Amino acid sequence: VNDWNQRAADALQRVRQRRVLVHSITNYVVMNSTANALLASGASPVMAHAQEEVEEMAALAGAVVLNIGTLQPSWVRAMQLAGAAANRRGIPVILDPVGAGATRYRTDTARMLATDLDIAVVRGNASETLSLAGLDATTKGVDAAHDVEEASRVAIDLAHRLETVVAITGEVDLVTDGSTVLRVRAGHTLMGYVTGTGCTATVLTAAFAAVEPDFVAAAAGALAYFGIAGERAASRSPSPGSFRVALDDLLYEMTPDDLVHEARIHEVTR
Amino acid sequence: VNDWNQRAADALQRVRQRRVLVHSITNYVVMNSTANALLASGASPVMAHAQEEVEEMAALAGAVVLNIGTLQPSWVRAMQLAGAAANRRGIPVILDPVGAGATRYRTDTARMLATDLDIAVVRGNASETLSLAGLDATTKGVDAAHDVEEASRVAIDLAHRLETVVAITGEVDLVTDGSTVLRVRAGHTLMGYVTGTGCTATVLTAAFAAVEPDFVAAAAGALAYFGIAGERAASRSPSPGSFRVALDDLLYEMTPDDLVHEARIHEVTR
Amino acid sequence: VNDWNQRAADALQRVRQRRVLVHSITNYVVMNSTANALLASGASPVMAHAQEEVEEMAALAGAVVLNIGTLQPSWVRAMQLAGAAANRRGIPVILDPVGAGATRYRTDTARMLATDLDIAVVRGNASETLSLAGLDATTKGVDAAHDVEEASRVAIDLAHRLETVVAITGEVDLVTDGSTVLRVRAGHTLMGYVTGTGCTATVLTAAFAAVEPDFVAAAAGALAYFGIAGERAASRSPSPGSFRVALDDLLYEMTPDDLVHEARIHEVTR
Repeated sequence: VNDWNQRAADALQRVRQRRVLVHSITNYVVMNSTANALLASGASPVMAHAQEEVEEMAALAGAVVLNIGTLQPSWVRAMQLAGAAANRRGIPVILDPVGAGATRYRTDTARMLATDLDIAVVRGNASETLSLAGLDATTKGVDAAHDVEEASRVAIDLAHRLETVVAITGEVDLVTDGSTVLRVRAGHTLMGYVTGTGCTATVLTAAFAAVEPDFVAAAAGALAYFGIAGERAASRSPSPGSFRVALDDLLYEMTPDDLVHEARIHEVTR
Repeated sequence: VNDWNQRAADALQRVRQRRVLVHSITNYVVMNSTANALLASGASPVMAHAQEEVEEMAALAGAVVLNIGTLQPSWVRAMQLAGAAANRRGIPVILDPVGAGATRYRTDTARMLATDLDIAVVRGNASETLSLAGLDATTKGVDAAHDVEEASRVAIDLAHRLETVVAITGEVDLVTDGSTVLRVRAGHTLMGYVTGTGCTATVLTAAFAAVEPDFVAAAAGALAYFGIAGERAASRSPSPGSFRVALDDLLYEMTPDDLVHEARIHEVTR
Repeated sequence: VNDWNQRAADALQRVRQRRVLVHSITNYVVMNSTANALLASGASPVMAHAQEEVEEMAALAGAVVLNIGTLQPSWVRAMQLAGAAANRRGIPVILDPVGAGATRYRTDTARMLATDLDIAVVRGNASETLSLAGLDATTKGVDAAHDVEEASRVAIDLAHRLETVVAITGEVDLVTDGSTVLRVRAGHTLMGYVTGTGCTATVLTAAFAAVEPDFVAAAAGALAYFGIAGERAASRSPSPGSFRVALDDLLYEMTPDDLVHEARIHEVTR
């Protein structure tokens, strides 16, 4: 058995046993859908963004998600407070730099958070990750303009520089801490027809990171879990409305054993 | 026929006939799902949170919902204004103290609103209600750590003290104004795998309270209605994605007659 | 073949080919559902509301949506900035005056945006449009209290006065630039049991306006497309939960050819 698959399965089991609490400061568009994905997966979501309470809430969580999809200054300040509170307690912080590269404000905010905080995992698409690395990326909204392959070298450099795990999702997902490089083959094109699937990958990564201290294994496991759910959902539903519904059904139905047998997580020999 | 069941059925019918307008100042996570639940039930939702308009909007409504799930100071101020405007006109105000007990800010805000305003019904889980009563409750996110049974005595005291109806949802729901105590047996564990089902119970309570001046009957009726929808939805869909869809279908399909025959609302002899 | 139908079909094809980016500054309730509707239709949604970035984001878009459903002053200011940035570049701006007439703040804001900006299309229900025209309309929440027929004359006047296209949705939709008047017969009563269907009509109008410079044709085409999806969805699902899911499925499944054959867009001889 592939050891990475086994670790993914173990992490999923622990997420469910502990009903891991994930505190998200995230964008308005995906609050409902990511909360439902976490619940379907067996985790427990909480949203809180007021500066009056984010530090206290972050301290209760198993992991903290910072997602800049509909950012504004007061929320960014809350992200800094929550992230720092989590850092002080060793609670993993996951950053989703939604739309970095599209506007200067997003790029600058993503870089500031990535630099000032101790980020466990950055989860983005290729364009967003390139922007974070200071490269000239052309983002069209929240879509990925760059190929994951092209971004591989950049991801390794970025992971080294920020001392973080970088997880780039695309046709094939890439996860690296700068030394180990994993490829995760999973997912379906229909996921691109549902809003916030990237953000869902991020919150699931957070749930896994709460119970798996090797964040490379955690991110790869979460992406495999979500990708397989997407594949199975597509075989149930060929259109995005019912596909979206099936996706949550499958996050709920999938067992750790399924992950052992079906995950396609592979280490890249460099 | 159980008189409480009959009153629940009558209330549902009036909600639909009058297409009751429910004005919610609520959390971002559930805005879409609670609006859809109200529409499926035959009511009419509106959301407005700007201090520039909440008093005017509240005055148009049949009931006002104050839900602190993603609170921040400007929204709390809007809740005070909307609540006071509703109080001046005798429009029932329903409070959902989401996450009270989890952070000091939530606990303090929930208590402030419950004290300063004339609240028709407080709808929460056991932990949140205990926190509101000033008892030491350990809330894990928005989950219920306390059993409804344990909270019964506290609810009666709280209802007396605040001169409100307290509705605690859990495996068995409890509704009391401090004198009458009702138990509502309804619901399904899958409801815990969908975000905002508690918040949906709250908006349905608001819709019923708009047409049933006995708020004990209104709250029990709404909880029975929602719980039965949950049971039926679970028999259609064993997983949370499709369960969520079926839940709205059943709120729409259920008739007042179904409530007469299936509601399990019972008065507790004390 | 009806030329309006053909143009609707051509527009849908171009939306998909170009994967048109629609930048919405919209209400919290419908952010998720309108993003999903755009994706299902083959367009690409982005949400951004911070004054720090809206001008830059609007400049990237094919069309900009301003929707006042949960307005507050800082968001209104962002709408002004985004709208002006779009106007400077000739990017169409679509206004959805949600709830105009319900509160003075909404009415005033809708009028201010309609007057200060160069609006390509105003998409609202009859009550909202009447309010925009300064007539005494009684809005009950976001429902339409006025008949589309009654509003026809007002729409023509308003279109002249604001030099915009006015699209009023109701049992029969009406689209006019003050000279040409189109009627679109499409839709189903179940659409009134799902939150944000009006807002979805608006974002689809924006997507079509991004690729069809005749905004009368664009609006009518989008409304026909959405209405037919609604009819087909209703024949799949008789209840609002599953209807909502089917609606996105059908936006995805419908072909330009379907629009050629099934759209019922008719020019009114005056």
